[in-house]
Amino acid sequence: MQVKYWKVAVTVLVPVILLLMPVPAGLPVKAWQLFAVYLGAIIGLMLRPAPEPVVLIVAVAVSSICFKNTSIVLAGYASTTAWLVFSAFMLGQAFVETGLGRRIAYILIGKLGRTTLGLGYVAAFTDMIISPATPSNTARTGGLVYPIFRSIAVTLDSEPGPTSRRIGGYLTLLLYQISITTASMFLTASATNLLVTTFAKSILKQDVSWTQWAMAIFPPSLLILLLVPYIVYKLYPPEIKTINNKEIAANGLAEIGLTTRREKTLALLFVLSIIGWATGTITKIDATAVAIGFVGACLVTGVVKWESLVNAKGAWNTLIWYGGIISLADGLAKAGFFKWLTDVMAKNLNFTGYDAYIILVGLLVISIPVRYFFASLAPYCSTFIPVLFTLGLVANVPVWPLIFLMGAMSEFGCLLTHYGNAVAPVLFGPGYVDQATWWKVGTIVMVVAAVIYLTAGMAYWKVLGLY
Amino acid sequence: MQVKYWKVAVTVLVPVILLLMPVPAGLPVKAWQLFAVYLGAIIGLMLRPAPEPVVLIVAVAVSSICFKNTSIVLAGYASTTAWLVFSAFMLGQAFVETGLGRRIAYILIGKLGRTTLGLGYVAAFTDMIISPATPSNTARTGGLVYPIFRSIAVTLDSEPGPTSRRIGGYLTLLLYQISITTASMFLTASATNLLVTTFAKSILKQDVSWTQWAMAIFPPSLLILLLVPYIVYKLYPPEIKTINNKEIAANGLAEIGLTTRREKTLALLFVLSIIGWATGTITKIDATAVAIGFVGACLVTGVVKWESLVNAKGAWNTLIWYGGIISLADGLAKAGFFKWLTDVMAKNLNFTGYDAYIILVGLLVISIPVRYFFASLAPYCSTFIPVLFTLGLVANVPVWPLIFLMGAMSEFGCLLTHYGNAVAPVLFGPGYVDQATWWKVGTIVMVVAAVIYLTAGMAYWKVLGLY
Repeated sequence: MQVKYWKVAVTVLVPVILLLMPVPAGLPVKAWQLFAVYLGAIIGLMLRPAPEPVVLIVAVAVSSICFKNTSIVLAGYASTTAWLVFSAFMLGQAFVETGLGRRIAYILIGKLGRTTLGLGYVAAFTDMIISPATPSNTARTGGLVYPIFRSIAVTLDSEPGPTSRRIGGYLTLLLYQISITTASMFLTASATNLLVTTFAKSILKQDVSWTQWAMAIFPPSLLILLLVPYIVYKLYPPEIKTINNKEIAANGLAEIGLTTRREKTLALLFVLSIIGWATGTITKIDATAVAIGFVGACLVTGVVKWESLVNAKGAWNTLIWYGGIISLADGLAKAGFFKWLTDVMAKNLNFTGYDAYIILVGLLVISIPVRYFFASLAPYCSTFIPVLFTLGLVANVPVWPLIFLMGAMSEFGCLLTHYGNAVAPVLFGPGYVDQATWWKVGTIVMVVAAVIYLTAGMAYWKVLGLY
Repeated sequence: MQVKYWKVAVTVLVPVILLLMPVPAGLPVKAWQLFAVYLGAIIGLMLRPAPEPVVLIVAVAVSSICFKNTSIVLAGYASTTAWLVFSAFMLGQAFVETGLGRRIAYILIGKLGRTTLGLGYVAAFTDMIISPATPSNTARTGGLVYPIFRSIAVTLDSEPGPTSRRIGGYLTLLLYQISITTASMFLTASATNLLVTTFAKSILKQDVSWTQWAMAIFPPSLLILLLVPYIVYKLYPPEIKTINNKEIAANGLAEIGLTTRREKTLALLFVLSIIGWATGTITKIDATAVAIGFVGACLVTGVVKWESLVNAKGAWNTLIWYGGIISLADGLAKAGFFKWLTDVMAKNLNFTGYDAYIILVGLLVISIPVRYFFASLAPYCSTFIPVLFTLGLVANVPVWPLIFLMGAMSEFGCLLTHYGNAVAPVLFGPGYVDQATWWKVGTIVMVVAAVIYLTAGMAYWKVLGLY
């Protein structure tokens, strides 16, 4: 294991130095200690001197040994947030295993994939359909959807290099834009969305249900999703314009074989879960209960076996490090850290005279350039979302637009680079698309998304009565 | 997957019937609902229509969907109890992987294993040494210690069948007695000990620290451990009386190779953890913090890699089902179930005029015959320990002897059968020992343990001032 020692040093030294400094006036000691560990954990997540779960286990261990707060730093492991992510991860496994995800893709390819542009829409819809049950872009797009479309590219003799522009480059670049867009759509479509709602709860005192998220964000993001294949098609056109989609679909479906009972059961349970999530505000059954119920039902009906779930390492990794980071973030809130931060900002910043809309735009603008420094989404959400929410609170911005704008744009900010989201290396890695194109197209789509959210999105939220 | 449908039916029907019955007078509805799910979970653990984690996931799902108490049924996953078990499980992995466990065994064999009786003591000490960091009998004895001694038996031409009595039968039967005895010694030597302390907290309102457990139970159990090799040697004598221990040890150590840095680091960290656990009452660092710190330190120093921990399925299985069962048990306590149970018992039972000691003996006696119906230890602890504690509470028995006697004897009760503990099938399975012998010797050792606890143990606790 080759570890870069400077990474270890930075991760350890920053919290140590912080702890050696005097506690800022007005801040409880407990909160300062937690903040030091939290910062160390986030630096660990950014620099990755070790895998994420190891970083969080060490953070939890240090915090519980040095500051005697074991219960506080374990609290996140019982949070409905961590379990929603964990359960949804388990479900992603079911889509891969049963072949249902691939079947959906090939059926859509057969129906809508005659043109390359149509194929782009098929990719978008496939990714969107399974997004509510796969909170990992890497699992959804990297593991399930992209392999299908990459194999289509390979079949059509489009490999990385001279032939990449035939179709492979287009599909690859497009799938990144799609993956990020669908990630924003549902609370369960990206693990980081749950971090956003965690801070909405702890800083803005606002619970956000699965339904509320989908109501507010799905429509504007769907508009963006409908534009994305066309935008990429225009900016980075594939040389192949039509394909023999019927043959590709027939071969793909033949390979998967007949629909099994497991697949049908999964499809039924998935629809029931969507209904469960969508009606949560009426039935009062929370999203986590639905997700755990979905997992339980998959196990009982034999859609997946426990053996294969226990091998779903991504789910366990996520449980460990999300549970840890949520513990720390919640602990910070309970110890009064964000209240103190708000007070400090309120004393030193003056937003009077500025319109709430201008402030929202301002917050969005300052959230963009920092994205170049974040090699994945969770550290961004763990550090910047609390700051943005606190600033918004100080500036007295209406909470709902604040949550949904920052939440949705936390995803779209990933588009700026080829490392902004964990799935980016999976798609960029094969080398179908050069970096300049990747950044350029991503930036354009990000700007389009921002404009849509600041115009149509804000107007729509007004209609919903969110502010 | 061949499932016995009657098992599913019983597991599902019992809670359903319970829920259809009127709620007993004086019991909150919430507590009754939780109790039904809890009972279903325990029946599921007993009959095993599905693996333990699946049973608990379904119980958690049903409870959170039907009774809207997601947070309550997830609470156990943040409990220090569940994390202590989980962390210790992870550590057991380190002992197996680094070869440290095997090295300890071979060193002891070289020093003390010249006679077959001495070899028995080596088995006892090896198992005892690693027991504080391996809360699974299956992992400790079944996975680490037994394979060493079985290979010695095989080397000496003692296989199941006609040659079993040469030495293999003795070592096999002995290791079961040892495994159960060491399991009682430390809070972290058996996952079920944590269930006992969970109920001590929720029913008897008594926290039990790692140190307190070790102080009270280690000495009497050590006495039993010292008797066990001799007892088995007399009751089931091996034909081989002396062995070439030097050669066996030399070969074993040669196979493991030179001591690695990882092994030395693990040994050091293990000693530090024992010190950490033993001094917990002084340092105020709880056992869970020490255990998580131990895991973190093993990861940071490279003793084990995260990759191998994430593959330690036993640990994840245990986290899921212990977390679930602890959530339900704690939920029951918080909903007032045990208070109600105590009131009902107090109204219907009359212990006045009986001496506390007689009542303790009585409780012990009623706890024994039920053991024949339990195919593993956790369901026994989940159902009978609360009943025994409640009875003790109603009878006004001093809490410390109640906790420690029932706690220690929960382990020794496993000795009665060849299925009472998860490690039993691993040892009984190969066929070295017939069932009649297994039950007979186990029963004798169990009686010896009971007598020692009721005489020397009680006297010692008196000296400690525990009652």
